[in-house]
Formats: sequence, structure tokens, C-alpha cells
Amino acid sequence: MLGECLKSVREQVPLVHNITNYVTVNDVANVLLACGGSPIMSDEPQDVEDITTICGGLNINIGTLNERSIEGMFAAGRRAKELGHPILLDPVGAGASKLRTETALKLMEELHPTVIRGNISEIKTLAFGSGTTKGVDADVADAVTEENLDASVAFVKDFAKKSGSIIAITGAIDLVSDGEHCYVIRNGRPEMGKITGTGCQLSGMMTAYITANPDQRLEAAAAAVCVMGLAGEIGWSHMQEWEGNSTYRNRIIDAIYQMDEAILDEGAKYECR
Amino acid sequence: MLGECLKSVREQVPLVHNITNYVTVNDVANVLLACGGSPIMSDEPQDVEDITTICGGLNINIGTLNERSIEGMFAAGRRAKELGHPILLDPVGAGASKLRTETALKLMEELHPTVIRGNISEIKTLAFGSGTTKGVDADVADAVTEENLDASVAFVKDFAKKSGSIIAITGAIDLVSDGEHCYVIRNGRPEMGKITGTGCQLSGMMTAYITANPDQRLEAAAAAVCVMGLAGEIGWSHMQEWEGNSTYRNRIIDAIYQMDEAILDEGAKYECR
Amino acid sequence: MLGECLKSVREQVPLVHNITNYVTVNDVANVLLACGGSPIMSDEPQDVEDITTICGGLNINIGTLNERSIEGMFAAGRRAKELGHPILLDPVGAGASKLRTETALKLMEELHPTVIRGNISEIKTLAFGSGTTKGVDADVADAVTEENLDASVAFVKDFAKKSGSIIAITGAIDLVSDGEHCYVIRNGRPEMGKITGTGCQLSGMMTAYITANPDQRLEAAAAAVCVMGLAGEIGWSHMQEWEGNSTYRNRIIDAIYQMDEAILDEGAKYECR
Repeated sequence: MLGECLKSVREQVPLVHNITNYVTVNDVANVLLACGGSPIMSDEPQDVEDITTICGGLNINIGTLNERSIEGMFAAGRRAKELGHPILLDPVGAGASKLRTETALKLMEELHPTVIRGNISEIKTLAFGSGTTKGVDADVADAVTEENLDASVAFVKDFAKKSGSIIAITGAIDLVSDGEHCYVIRNGRPEMGKITGTGCQLSGMMTAYITANPDQRLEAAAAAVCVMGLAGEIGWSHMQEWEGNSTYRNRIIDAIYQMDEAILDEGAKYECR
Repeated sequence: MLGECLKSVREQVPLVHNITNYVTVNDVANVLLACGGSPIMSDEPQDVEDITTICGGLNINIGTLNERSIEGMFAAGRRAKELGHPILLDPVGAGASKLRTETALKLMEELHPTVIRGNISEIKTLAFGSGTTKGVDADVADAVTEENLDASVAFVKDFAKKSGSIIAITGAIDLVSDGEHCYVIRNGRPEMGKITGTGCQLSGMMTAYITANPDQRLEAAAAAVCVMGLAGEIGWSHMQEWEGNSTYRNRIIDAIYQMDEAILDEGAKYECR
Repeated sequence: MLGECLKSVREQVPLVHNITNYVTVNDVANVLLACGGSPIMSDEPQDVEDITTICGGLNINIGTLNERSIEGMFAAGRRAKELGHPILLDPVGAGASKLRTETALKLMEELHPTVIRGNISEIKTLAFGSGTTKGVDADVADAVTEENLDASVAFVKDFAKKSGSIIAITGAIDLVSDGEHCYVIRNGRPEMGKITGTGCQLSGMMTAYITANPDQRLEAAAAAVCVMGLAGEIGWSHMQEWEGNSTYRNRIIDAIYQMDEAILDEGAKYECR
């Protein structure tokens, strides 16, 4: 079933407007192309409304935000809402600075994003108004584990219900919930954390997935998480022992490029709670 | 003959000032180094005049333009004109937003660029004042094909004559014209469209080529197009079946790095009309 | 002994705040992860103080500086000083424009960076107030060679003493001095100059090294230089004859990722004067 979401992306080639950080933007663009979507980047307030208008979905990522790009995020978001486009919010570093936390909270409040995707510390910051984010990486103390899985699932369902957004928390175990159901996903490898921007890449790809699958957005968001994790597993299988994180980055994007329905349906490791 | 243009670049190591988008800027820098040039990036209005002064050519790319960088584009462009430096304009996304279309038209009008390089939809937007650009990619309906080649060649010659710029339209078939002659180039592979920024990379490299070949700029622009397409063919020959667009990006830049006069003269596929 | 500095980085995982250019920022982030550190990027004046506060060290790189990011550099720098965090200054393009030269001099004067790392032309610009920088690359006439080594060592010691900063000049021969001692390092390969941003990458990594080794910062800075050069040698050993600068970039970062105490202590080529 997740494979069908992938198929829709490849068939529809959704055009995704990205307002994203300059650290990982090139990888986000290449991942969007690899998965079958089409990327366009624009953050200038005078430019974003026109760009959002010709796109199908909007990906807002607050890493390396600045005063001007924040204005662009709100302008693009309002236009996307008017047009009924899906919006994804990636609250990079929420909890690490007042500006990031407040911007993420305001975007959430005003835009009611279709999906909010972050690590556990960022999502807890949005849920509780403050967090213990260690920079742009999750705090180990927060991590979703087999031991606290029931409580974590309950938390993500509850926050999804309260916020009205699909919530995707990614880490060793990934959780994706719309408030009623929760996908628990166990694809991926720990070495993915040694590559900058795998989270940003997933947010870009997930926006393509929810854009191309308007009638099953929860499944589409979960499918994107599985694709990313599975690509991490496949990419790793092609690594030489002397290779490291830079080559691994390429191999993961390559595996997304090669992914098809059958590979995804066979390799996706998830349960629905 | 195109090989001589390549040789000039490698001998002269032209320093190219790039005002370019933050999506593909790293690849533009590496391609400039790979082809034998030297890149410098600067978009701050207070910085650009000094930087342009020490360079030999200027590459203006309007992807991810903003209010400040637009000011930088005009300031650098005016200075480059005073110094007689060649200017290349890459109108990324012209036709996709009012700001992009108007900025590209104003830059064209005020700077009279030596070369304008874009996809067919962007160039049609500049020629007719409005276009059907699908984001930053060309509209399929606009594509240059064997069927409409005569009309396409007539269009590019006409626009080159009227604008006074060399016009380079890249796609499955590439056209490069100064108004009198038109190179029709058939190098390249369709998979290059699945890598972000091959157009931006070509614009950077082409600026190095026209800078190092002041007496034969049409040939130099055509040579750069052939180098990019041929590198796409050579890079593809080194791909493993499980590799994708991320590795392909590296292999194309590697092939540009390894390209020499003999490889180019043997592999370039063009006719002159 | 340099190996111990590497070990400290891997054990402590220093969080490094980077205000750096958008050309090479992705590679800087991946190199920081590869060497055992953790990167965060932020340049918005309203954001940088909070971000610096949660980090251990600050890396200021003036490539693609703009009015807003310059304000961010000073705000972050002042906060880092209050907190006693080490600061590294990478004066990219000092000597190439008035804005870059003046900004680097003001940052040096106000922040008294722990380390200043640049090429010989940039460092001479800071020492003498003006330079002959050719864009962002060193002028060949300035290069540190075996012939002028005694004079070069004397210059770097003198400038380190006067400035109160550790000075790291990188090129074919690298010099790192605190005013008393000077490491002369001969790792690396000339082909590294054909990759954009190996200097920026080194500055990011060096900030992690001086952050994790507060009691031996000179050794830590020298160790980072050896790691980078040795990774260039190891990465080169894995190159196919048809590969070029794009793949070489990946292989160098991969080699940093794989580097351990033993590899570094065996491969580091330095003398102390």
C-alpha cells in the first residue's frame, strides 16, 4: 500500500516550493528529483506568492532562518492555505533558540501545517512550549526507544489530535500519527545521523508525497519515512569499508532514485498502532 | 576548433565572479575549478564592485534572488560593463514569478549581457515578455525537437539579433546563436535533467569560456555546451546500475575535470546553421 | 600526541556554531560530523546569541558575507567571548575587497580570535593592512616554499605574537604558530586546491579541535591541519584514473570520517620550530 504512494509521486511529478536552509538545500533538491518530484526554491517575500501559486505543495524548514526569510515563510504559507496546498513544517532547532521556537510556534498556529516533521526534541518543544534540543540534533534523553514506545505513541497521537497536524517524529524508531493511528517505523541505520540534513531531505520528499497523495496523507507521510530509512539500508549495502559519510550521502540519494513500488513494499518495516 | 576554446580556459585560469543561487552554488564552484577556471562568489552590494574588478567575467544567475542580491546584480553588472568584462545572464525561473521575469528583463535591458543562457521557456519569456515556465524546468510543450528545429533556429537567431546578446537555449537539443550563425548541439543525456543545477553549472563554466576567449565568444559558448553534454555522456559510462542522480552529479563534474582538447574535439556533436 | 587531540574531539563531540559562506557550508557540516564534532549554522543577528550559548566554539568565515551576517558575526563573537568560548576567524578573500579586508580587521581587533586560519595572502593582508589576494586563492608570489621557509616562520611567529592569536597559514607547506613555537606541516596534495572549500572545511574542523582541547590549542590546531592533509593523501589513494575533483571531495571527507589516533600519529608529517 505504501508502494502506491510512491507510484503517485512518480506519476504526478509534484512541484514542491521549498523555503529551506542553505546548509542542506542542494541535497533537498536532489532528493526531490530522485523521488520523482520537482523542486523550486524561493524565500524572498516579493517572490514566494507567485512561486507557491504554480506549485502543488510547500515545505517550510526554519534552519538558517532570517528576518527576511521568516517573512517569506508566512507569505508563502498564507498563499498555500488559500489555494488548499499541503504545507509541511520542519522546525529545525526549535528549542535551541528563542527565535526558532517562537517562529515555529507562530507558523504552527497561523498555518496549521498538514504535517510537522522533526526530531523528538523539536516536537516536544512545540508540544510543551520549551525543550532540551541539543543544537539541531535530538537530546539522547528524549529518544523514542522500545522501552518508552507506548508512552511515545500516546504522546504523538495526543499532540497530533491537539494540533490538527500529522506529526512525524524521526529517530531510531520513527512515529507518524494523525491522532487516530500511529505508524511505528523501524527502517534506517544509525550512521544516517552522521550525514548533515537527512531530516531536511526527508521533509522535502515527504512534501512531494503528501502533495501527490491528497486522499491518504498519513500513509503518504509514513511511506516517505520508510523510503528514507530503506534507502539508508540499501545505500549502506554498497559502502566500501574505507568510505564514510560523504559517500554514504550519495548512496542514499542514489537508492531513493532507484526505489520502486516493489522495493518499498518488500523493505518497509512498520506496524500500525 | 572548440578544443582551442577549452585550451584557452586551462591556460588562462579566468577568475569568474558569480552572483548565483544558494541551491547549486557549490557545484558551480567545483565545475569552474574542474574546467580550469577560478570561482569567487559575492552578492553583497557593498562587496560586488571590488570583487568584479579583480575578476575577468561575471555570471549572474537569478535563482533564489532577493532584494539585496538583486541590488548586487545591478551594481556588479554596471561595474563589469565599465571594465568591458563579459557578462552572462542565467534567468532561472523567468516566467515563474513576476519578480523573476521583471528582474531578468531589467538586467537584459540595462546590462546587455554578452550571453543569455536558459531553457526554452525562460528564453521565450524574455523574448515575448511572458512564458509558460513550469517552475525552474522548461515546459514540455516548448521543447526544441527535430520536428520544430527550423522554426526554433529561426527564433533563436532572431532573438539574438534583436537583443544583441548571444542566446544559448539548452535542452535535449541545444541552440547557441549570435544572430548570424546557430550551433545545433546534440550532446548530453536525458538523465542530466534529474540532477539539480546542471544548467547553473553550465552557466558558470560558459562564463569562464567566454572570458578566456574574447575573440570567439560564439564558439566559446558552444564549446561550453558541448563540454557539459559530453561530460554527461562520459560520466554516464562510469555509472553502476544501482547508482542514481547523486553519484551521476559527481561523475559529470569529474568528466569535466578530465576533459581535454582531444576528448572534446572527438566527442562534440554539433552542426552550424 | 596529535592523536590525543583527535581522540578528545571524538569523545567530547563539540558543538560548533558556524557563521559561514553558502558556497561550502554543506561540506563544512559534513566534515564536522566526519571528524566527530556536531555542527550548527546560524547567521541571523536575532538568533546567533542563543545558538552560540549552547555551543562550545564559534567558527566565523567571511566568504559571501553580507550586511546582516556581518552583524551576526559581531553579535555571536561578543557572546562567545563573554562565555570564554574559542573563536576561529577565517578571513576568506581578505585583500580582495575593501569590505572583506575591513570586516576581517575589525573582527580581529574586537574579538581577538583564538585562531586565525587563512591562506598566505589573506594573512599578509591582516598583518600589513593590504594584500595581493587573487580572489579567494593565494597569490603564487606569496607562497610559503622551502626557499623562504625561515622568513615565513619568522613572519608567522611575529604576527602571532603581535595579534595574540594562533595563526594558521595553509598551502603547500602549512605553518601554525602561537608566537613561540611553529608547526611546519607537509601533509596534503596539490589537487586539493581544485576542490572548492577545503580551507573552509579545515576551519570548521579546527574549531572542533580547539574546542575539545582547551589546554593544548596550538597542538589541536596543528592536529586539524595534519588530519586534513593526511585525509587528502588517503582520499587520493582511492581515486580511479578517470575520477576528478568532485569524487575527490567525497573521498577526503570519507577519510576524515575513518581517521583515528593511530592513522593520524603514523601519517602526520610535521616538525616543530
